[in-house]
Amino acid sequence: MTETSNIYRNNKNNPELDEKFMKEAIKQAKKALELGETPIGCVIVRDNKIYARGYNRRNTDHTTLGHAEINAIKKASAKFGDWRLEDCTLYVTLEPCQMCAGAIVQARIPRVVIGTMSPKSGCAGSLMNILECHLFNHSCEVRRNVLQKECAELMSLFFKNLRMSLKHQNQAHNPQLHP
Amino acid sequence: MTETSNIYRNNKNNPELDEKFMKEAIKQAKKALELGETPIGCVIVRDNKIYARGYNRRNTDHTTLGHAEINAIKKASAKFGDWRLEDCTLYVTLEPCQMCAGAIVQARIPRVVIGTMSPKSGCAGSLMNILECHLFNHSCEVRRNVLQKECAELMSLFFKNLRMSLKHQNQAHNPQLHP
Repeated sequence: MTETSNIYRNNKNNPELDEKFMKEAIKQAKKALELGETPIGCVIVRDNKIYARGYNRRNTDHTTLGHAEINAIKKASAKFGDWRLEDCTLYVTLEPCQMCAGAIVQARIPRVVIGTMSPKSGCAGSLMNILECHLFNHSCEVRRNVLQKECAELMSLFFKNLRMSLKHQNQAHNPQLHP
Repeated sequence: MTETSNIYRNNKNNPELDEKFMKEAIKQAKKALELGETPIGCVIVRDNKIYARGYNRRNTDHTTLGHAEINAIKKASAKFGDWRLEDCTLYVTLEPCQMCAGAIVQARIPRVVIGTMSPKSGCAGSLMNILECHLFNHSCEVRRNVLQKECAELMSLFFKNLRMSLKHQNQAHNPQLHP
């Protein structure tokens, strides 16, 4: 085991540190919520320091690549001047999709901490498990359900707001149906 | 079927058009080769017109996100002002990795044309098949082995050059072993 890999492994036995950094990812997710985006936030940590933050801006920035994890990985690559993020831990509020899980493996991030799982779209154990797939030349250690309740509540709030908004739009377009 | 989806489906029965656009992807791959990068190129086509080009710049740009497909998807999103690339065909010289296959599904690209397969890293049928996975809310039509020989030869040339370069470096560092 290399010296750098010890750094991220330390967090493995320090649940408080994981909660601390997940709180920072939740702060990022709230920024997405303020924009009306699905509230997903991410931070990338090395040596117990946050080097990159990201939140979902897919609709705002009109780009497929606007997911929280991709935004954070882009910033971390720029900060370290390297496409390999080999001694980092990535914290994300929602289980990554196939693109983001793929980017995490491509970046060779050794450890991933997930807030809440996404049964209908997640690729870290729900629909498939790209992060822990031993067919690839890299696989991650994954810790799940850190501050799960807070992360899931953010998602519920978003979908509740979305339903309300759609209901109001529907009423505005069809007033005769809603006297 | 929508009118736009007919546009990409037309190519399905037009192998000459597929070869024409794969040649353009090969031109992109050659740009990567000139930079000493793994030679992978990509174009994104709509209405039989190329809207975005990309080639592998991962080492040059020091970013995990420097793959050919990601670069092309980023440009296409910017050009169309939309994260959905729903009526496009993506041409790529090498079978996509897990990240790029994921990005293609996220972009809802309906049709993907692949030059040559990548048995050790590909995620469009080799190690797994993210493009044609019906667990997701989108899956692609895939055509494989278009101008396969040309695409595979580019890869062979790259690895041959890499082996030569490593051999010369080794000789330079250990001259006593190579009198």
